[in-house]
Amino acid sequence: MTERTWQVYLSGDAESVKQKRIEAGAEEAGLPVSFSAPVTDHAASDDAGTGTLGEESAPFWRDHMGAGVNAIRTQTLIRDADVVVVRFGDKYRQWNAAFDAGFAAALGKPVVTLHEAELDHALKEVDRAAQATARTAEQVVDVLRYVITGKLP
Amino acid sequence: MTERTWQVYLSGDAESVKQKRIEAGAEEAGLPVSFSAPVTDHAASDDAGTGTLGEESAPFWRDHMGAGVNAIRTQTLIRDADVVVVRFGDKYRQWNAAFDAGFAAALGKPVVTLHEAELDHALKEVDRAAQATARTAEQVVDVLRYVITGKLP
Amino acid sequence: MTERTWQVYLSGDAESVKQKRIEAGAEEAGLPVSFSAPVTDHAASDDAGTGTLGEESAPFWRDHMGAGVNAIRTQTLIRDADVVVVRFGDKYRQWNAAFDAGFAAALGKPVVTLHEAELDHALKEVDRAAQATARTAEQVVDVLRYVITGKLP
Amino acid sequence: MTERTWQVYLSGDAESVKQKRIEAGAEEAGLPVSFSAPVTDHAASDDAGTGTLGEESAPFWRDHMGAGVNAIRTQTLIRDADVVVVRFGDKYRQWNAAFDAGFAAALGKPVVTLHEAELDHALKEVDRAAQATARTAEQVVDVLRYVITGKLP
Amino acid sequence: MTERTWQVYLSGDAESVKQKRIEAGAEEAGLPVSFSAPVTDHAASDDAGTGTLGEESAPFWRDHMGAGVNAIRTQTLIRDADVVVVRFGDKYRQWNAAFDAGFAAALGKPVVTLHEAELDHALKEVDRAAQATARTAEQVVDVLRYVITGKLP
Amino acid sequence: MTERTWQVYLSGDAESVKQKRIEAGAEEAGLPVSFSAPVTDHAASDDAGTGTLGEESAPFWRDHMGAGVNAIRTQTLIRDADVVVVRFGDKYRQWNAAFDAGFAAALGKPVVTLHEAELDHALKEVDRAAQATARTAEQVVDVLRYVITGKLP
Amino acid sequence: MTERTWQVYLSGDAESVKQKRIEAGAEEAGLPVSFSAPVTDHAASDDAGTGTLGEESAPFWRDHMGAGVNAIRTQTLIRDADVVVVRFGDKYRQWNAAFDAGFAAALGKPVVTLHEAELDHALKEVDRAAQATARTAEQVVDVLRYVITGKLP
Amino acid sequence: MTERTWQVYLSGDAESVKQKRIEAGAEEAGLPVSFSAPVTDHAASDDAGTGTLGEESAPFWRDHMGAGVNAIRTQTLIRDADVVVVRFGDKYRQWNAAFDAGFAAALGKPVVTLHEAELDHALKEVDRAAQATARTAEQVVDVLRYVITGKLP
Repeated sequence: MTERTWQVYLSGDAESVKQKRIEAGAEEAGLPVSFSAPVTDHAASDDAGTGTLGEESAPFWRDHMGAGVNAIRTQTLIRDADVVVVRFGDKYRQWNAAFDAGFAAALGKPVVTLHEAELDHALKEVDRAAQATARTAEQVVDVLRYVITGKLP
Repeated sequence: MTERTWQVYLSGDAESVKQKRIEAGAEEAGLPVSFSAPVTDHAASDDAGTGTLGEESAPFWRDHMGAGVNAIRTQTLIRDADVVVVRFGDKYRQWNAAFDAGFAAALGKPVVTLHEAELDHALKEVDRAAQATARTAEQVVDVLRYVITGKLP
Repeated sequence: MTERTWQVYLSGDAESVKQKRIEAGAEEAGLPVSFSAPVTDHAASDDAGTGTLGEESAPFWRDHMGAGVNAIRTQTLIRDADVVVVRFGDKYRQWNAAFDAGFAAALGKPVVTLHEAELDHALKEVDRAAQATARTAEQVVDVLRYVITGKLP
Repeated sequence: MTERTWQVYLSGDAESVKQKRIEAGAEEAGLPVSFSAPVTDHAASDDAGTGTLGEESAPFWRDHMGAGVNAIRTQTLIRDADVVVVRFGDKYRQWNAAFDAGFAAALGKPVVTLHEAELDHALKEVDRAAQATARTAEQVVDVLRYVITGKLP
Repeated sequence: MTERTWQVYLSGDAESVKQKRIEAGAEEAGLPVSFSAPVTDHAASDDAGTGTLGEESAPFWRDHMGAGVNAIRTQTLIRDADVVVVRFGDKYRQWNAAFDAGFAAALGKPVVTLHEAELDHALKEVDRAAQATARTAEQVVDVLRYVITGKLP
Repeated sequence: MTERTWQVYLSGDAESVKQKRIEAGAEEAGLPVSFSAPVTDHAASDDAGTGTLGEESAPFWRDHMGAGVNAIRTQTLIRDADVVVVRFGDKYRQWNAAFDAGFAAALGKPVVTLHEAELDHALKEVDRAAQATARTAEQVVDVLRYVITGKLP
Repeated sequence: MTERTWQVYLSGDAESVKQKRIEAGAEEAGLPVSFSAPVTDHAASDDAGTGTLGEESAPFWRDHMGAGVNAIRTQTLIRDADVVVVRFGDKYRQWNAAFDAGFAAALGKPVVTLHEAELDHALKEVDRAAQATARTAEQVVDVLRYVITGKLP
Repeated sequence: MTERTWQVYLSGDAESVKQKRIEAGAEEAGLPVSFSAPVTDHAASDDAGTGTLGEESAPFWRDHMGAGVNAIRTQTLIRDADVVVVRFGDKYRQWNAAFDAGFAAALGKPVVTLHEAELDHALKEVDRAAQATARTAEQVVDVLRYVITGKLP
């Protein structure tokens, strides 16, 4: 009915397998979605501060500078997003993903979480604040297809 | 004077006769309006959760999952809307339509209600929060035409 | 830990049996809660406009005047509330209660719904926007006790 | 200069050793602080849903119900807080703490993080959004004393 | 049910006859209301700028300084108010009263207008944004009594 | 530097002489401005309610209906505007223009007032809340040119 | 008319002569004002980070830590304030005072500036965003007296 | 991934050397950035009020008029911006730049400061509220490149 392009922010772990499958799935389904995400090149992300603003030897402040530069990107894109998808994996602690979920929730943005069932108990507060909890990238695509077109797979 | 496209969200009962007449009327009048609405395929709407996120046997949680997925759509589109038209019929209780009206009112969105006079007393709080109460789809089109072009029918 | 008094708004049907049981239960439990509610004297509520602002013969405008005066009360108290409890019964359509729920949700207020299971499907959107769905007034008191004191019954 | 009581919300791990030391330290220092926190009785917190709203056998929905009830408490108290202190330990993943930090940051609340240096890299985004990162409960008390009274230890 | 004190801001013409009758009526009725208002001493109000900040010979800037100082009072009190009552009389143009009504409406504050029927057409936009239009000070008191206590006169 | 189109809302008296001169002046100057305004056809504006929603014999409610329909237009366009220009003339009381100014100011929109010096004292509160007070339509064009291009006439 | 205590935040230079005269003047005048301010002990303020959170040798990060701790105080108190008074002197650059003024203005708080006429041109943007510009501490007291009591000196 | 154009507002000193280098650098890097800035023609900026609204002989009010007109531009563009870059030099006091930083911070906009190390102590509060502090125009370009494309130089 409408030509609206949906802005979807993909928060979460920097190994982008799942992220790529969501993007590929949405493209294959022909959905009018514009994805954005944090920088997923792990090395670049870690050097975001010193690589742009100059050297810093203390690890805490290196991270602080980098996180500041990354936050310009992430918080701007979250504020722009219609939907925020937050992926949690087993490998990293991903406190930043949970932070993004809280940030999005406080702004009234719909959140979709994506994780295995074994993380359910640990993620119960985040899942509660979300509108949907998916187990696979395909399910996220199915949710987006339904939300945008009204069609079930 | 301006080429502005008006975003109009059509909340309310899933039998889309009235909705279609509003859309057809606006098109016939050549109004620059982009309509959006909840998913009006009743069966798809009821399966929105299990059809995308996987099976669930308990009816309460089936509905809960479905309502979450539908809310991604409806709350995003209401936040985007310039005007929210809320239709009430005799057939369903349509608490979701009243919920949408309250949600829109709290966001400062103009609301137009559409219903028969026999529902007036029951809908008095919702009508009060609205900027206009229409009886027919044609009247809604007339309101949109006037609001956008300044012309009366 | 804190002497905080919690503001709880009790929206919903004007037969106040359940409302009274919530208030009595909270008092019995010694909870620091200050309850507020719409005017529950049905006749007064219906005459709120003409009883204060002068006569009006047209039923639609009588209701409109009354609903305006009532909205001064309800919207002020909802904005003040920490928690909004919304009761749904079988007797009335209670679109105003669903409107209150939508209004509260858009303001980021936690909502607790209270209704029988037979209304679950019809209320799924409202329940989804709520933090808890209770079946009895006692359960609402239990939720308030836990939220305020951290104690389960 | 002012008799203002500061509202401080203590988010984070449910073993309350550090929390108690913050509260004791503030009391000892005679600071006008009113602390609040999530329910720190782990068992009660896990049963918050089923203990108030009735049985539920599916673990995901048990957690969902419980997290909803807990969110009534936590989100209300975070909205009320002047300062949000978020503790991270080594034992749990504490995604809820990171969620709280994101929620508080989006609301413009000052955040103080409290954790060991070995978590610095993993917590860099959360620390960046905070106004201060402390290593010990005593340092949090020192920050509160300075913020409220202008005195250094 | 609640001991809440209602904050009522009385905007409008500086001849305070009606304002005094509202205050007297509320006191007589024993309502828990705290009234505030712009400075109603016309001479002082006109000199608010030069009387505090120093001389200014140009009339436009005299008024500008005075209006700035008065705005500190009025905008603070309107932001604090639960209800804004706006009186219009025949004597002055009272654009400031209409400005206050628009300011309050944009903040989501309930507005009550008070004026004779002969001003109805000229005030239709302001009345539309109000929750109630009263003709007499007594009606305003009746509205406040009902809103606060649920009792009709 | 930027191709930004500025949205300018022209509030105020329905005789559109000044409004037309502002629009013509901006066009002549080649400014990237999109103007919007209330409906300036006085008769249509007065019939906005009954002409769209059906007959109403009571003058107060006729106006009420019309003002509701007009508010859908005006409040939407003010929320969209970058700058709100408010014209005051000698002929009407134009409480709606002052209302618009208050509404815009509370939303943080820059306001430009346009009126003769003889209205200065009566409009001092409105002028104070404005960023500029112009005497002629040409001055408004000059302000817009400078604001958009940085060039003085 | 009301027993309201006004919250006044005194931003600006750390030599507190003017600040003390404002506080003394308000007390002498018996005004119901509660003052707050940044920490005015310059040495403590500079050590606010390292004195609470531990040593740091790099001057930039020392300042960064200190400014973070100070911001917990200042931003909380500005959010709480009814009026923000910003003093500018000749001695320091006081970018923090101008920052506070911008922060307060964006939140819709009334600002009063206090400085000598020789700084007028350099401070024109800040003064424009203020409701009043005073030259002396006594004038600030006069503004507060008028705003609160309606009396000119 | 996205075709998003980033809006960057360049606040600060009117000698536009650094500003031009940022714009040239971003263009050379092919970044999708739309820059905006205050009027950097110092003479025009000083005459912004009298050059558009008519003569004024008192210097304070000349500046006041000019600052009002300039504020229409600057506050609109800051509200539109994704990122606000604030440059500080040695030559002017640039209280307006610090004001812009405070205004942007209160709106939740990411701020990047740009200044020499010798100003670090004086600017510590502003730097603390910023997400990044750069020393050169090239570093600002590097930050923008990374934020937008994820690439380090």
